[in-house]
Amino acid sequence: MREPYPVPAADLPKRVTIYEVGPRDGLQNEKEIVPVEVKLQFLDRLVAAGLTVVEATSLVRPEWVPQLADAEELLSRLTPEPGVRYPVLVPNERGLERALRLGVTEIAIFASATETFARRNLNRSMAESMKMFAPVVERALAAGLRVRAYVSMCFGDPWEGPTPISQVVDVGTRLLDMGCHELSLGDTIGVGTPGHVTALLRAFTERGVGVDRLAVHFHDTYGQALANTLAALRAGVTVVDASAGGIGGCPYAESATGNLATEDLVWMLHGLGVETGVDLAALVETSTWLADRLGRPSPSRVVQALS
Amino acid sequence: MREPYPVPAADLPKRVTIYEVGPRDGLQNEKEIVPVEVKLQFLDRLVAAGLTVVEATSLVRPEWVPQLADAEELLSRLTPEPGVRYPVLVPNERGLERALRLGVTEIAIFASATETFARRNLNRSMAESMKMFAPVVERALAAGLRVRAYVSMCFGDPWEGPTPISQVVDVGTRLLDMGCHELSLGDTIGVGTPGHVTALLRAFTERGVGVDRLAVHFHDTYGQALANTLAALRAGVTVVDASAGGIGGCPYAESATGNLATEDLVWMLHGLGVETGVDLAALVETSTWLADRLGRPSPSRVVQALS
Repeated sequence: MREPYPVPAADLPKRVTIYEVGPRDGLQNEKEIVPVEVKLQFLDRLVAAGLTVVEATSLVRPEWVPQLADAEELLSRLTPEPGVRYPVLVPNERGLERALRLGVTEIAIFASATETFARRNLNRSMAESMKMFAPVVERALAAGLRVRAYVSMCFGDPWEGPTPISQVVDVGTRLLDMGCHELSLGDTIGVGTPGHVTALLRAFTERGVGVDRLAVHFHDTYGQALANTLAALRAGVTVVDASAGGIGGCPYAESATGNLATEDLVWMLHGLGVETGVDLAALVETSTWLADRLGRPSPSRVVQALS
Repeated sequence: MREPYPVPAADLPKRVTIYEVGPRDGLQNEKEIVPVEVKLQFLDRLVAAGLTVVEATSLVRPEWVPQLADAEELLSRLTPEPGVRYPVLVPNERGLERALRLGVTEIAIFASATETFARRNLNRSMAESMKMFAPVVERALAAGLRVRAYVSMCFGDPWEGPTPISQVVDVGTRLLDMGCHELSLGDTIGVGTPGHVTALLRAFTERGVGVDRLAVHFHDTYGQALANTLAALRAGVTVVDASAGGIGGCPYAESATGNLATEDLVWMLHGLGVETGVDLAALVETSTWLADRLGRPSPSRVVQALS
C-alpha cells in the first residue's frame, strides 16, 4: 500500500495524539442502528491500528441519539486495552451517574460558544449550561475522572455568523477553571480557515491558557479541515480530533457534514514526520470494513484512494 | 450563500492569481464528449466569475485526447475578454504551429520530473524530451508568446516512489533557462505533504530561482491539496493551479484523481484575507451547472455544501 514520504517541516510537534471520535461522533448520525457487536469490533480494530484515545460512546438520553442507546451494553462488554483511554460523552449529572456506575474513567462534556446553538443543542442559555456543567465536573473530579470539554461553534454558527474570538475564550477559560483538563475547540460547521485558527489559539495563550490544554476538532464541510490542522500544529497543538473514515457530523447543525478523516490526518502527519503511533494500512482496512457495514463509501480521500 | 469570514494570517501574499485548469486538465478526462458550445460557455462563465487566467484547451494530437479534439474550433470561436489570459497546452513543434496559426498568445508545455513518467507520458526519456522542448520554447518566444512549463510528478510517481528534490530542481531550472516564464510544480499523484512542499520550494530558491516564477499544482487524491497550498503560500508562491468544481486528473497516471477544486481554494484564500478577484457564488453556480452537464456531482467540498 502507498504510504506518505516523510519530509519533516520545522517548528512542528514531534508527536501528535489523535483523539478518535468515530465510534461516538461518527456513528451517532447513522440512521440505521449499527449492532453493538459491530461497534465493539470497530473499537477493537481502531485500538489495534494504534489509536490510544477512542471516544467510545455517549451517555445522553437514548431518545436523543437512538444510535447510541446501547451505550451501557457496549461499555459493559468492552474489554479495554491497557494504556488506551476510552472517554465517554456525558451531558449532565444523570449521565455522570451512569458513567460512574459503569466504571468510566474519563468523560467529555459539550458546551457551545454561541447562544443560539446552546439553546438549540442544550436547550438552555450559555450561562445556564455553565451552571449545569459545574456540578458534573466537580463530582467527576472528586471521583478521580478526567473531564474534557468540547466547545462547539468556535468559528461561526449558522444563525449568528462568525463567533467572536473573545466569546470562545470566555467560554473555554470558564470550563478550564472548572477543572476540565482539555478543551476541544470545534469548528462544527466547518467554516474556519487557517488564519482564524491561528488567531483563536493565540487569544487563548494570551489569556494564559497553555496550548497543551487545547485540542482542535475540524469538520471538512468546506474542505478546510487539514489546512486548519496544519495551522493548529504550527501553533503548538498536539491533540487533534478525527473520525476514522471521515464518518459523522452533527445532527443538530445545518451542513455540519464530515468530520476530518483520521486517515487524511495521518497521511499529513506521517508526511510531516510527526509520530502518531497509527498503522495507516490497518486503519484504512478498518474504515473500509466499516463502510461495507454502513453500506456506503467512506468520504475520506485516503480511504477512497487506497481501498 | 455562506461565505468565509476573513481573518488574515501574517506573512502571506496579499493577492493570489488562480490559474484555472478546468477546461483543459479538468475536461480532458471526461469520457463523454462535451459539446464545444458547453466548453465555450464554461470558459465565459469562469471569466465572468472573475478568473483571469484560464487554460482553454490542448493542441495535442486529437487521438491522444479525443475530448479536446475540438481545440481549433473552440479557439476560433472563443471571444477573449480583455485582460484575461487563455493559455493553451502544446506538446511539440507541430502543436506550436497550430497555436500560432490560431493566434494563441500564451502556451504551456508539459515535462516530467521522473524518467518513467517521461517515457509513459511523452514517449521519450527526460533528456530527449528536453531536446523536444527547446525548439518549441525558442520559436514561441521568437513569436512573442509566453511559455509556462508544467513539471509532473514533482513529489513522487507510482513507479519510482519519492522524486528526489534535486532532480525536480534540475528539470525545472533547465526549463526556466530555456526561457519559460513560469514553472507549475505538479503533484500529479497527490502524495505530497506540506513539509515536502516547503523543502522543494526552498531548494528552488537556493538555486537562485525567484518564487515569483513558481506556481503549484496539487491534486487532492489523499486530501492534502489545500494544506500543501497553505505551505506554498507561506513560502511566497502567488500562482496556484486549480480546477473549477475539482474536475479532472491525469489519464496516464494511476490514482491521479482530483485536481484541487477552485472553490475550496477560494474559500481558504478569502478566509485568509487573500484577494483573488473571484466571485465565489458565481463560481459555485458555474460548477453546479457544469456538473449537471457532466451528469455527476462535483467532488468539491464547497460546491457540495453550497449547491
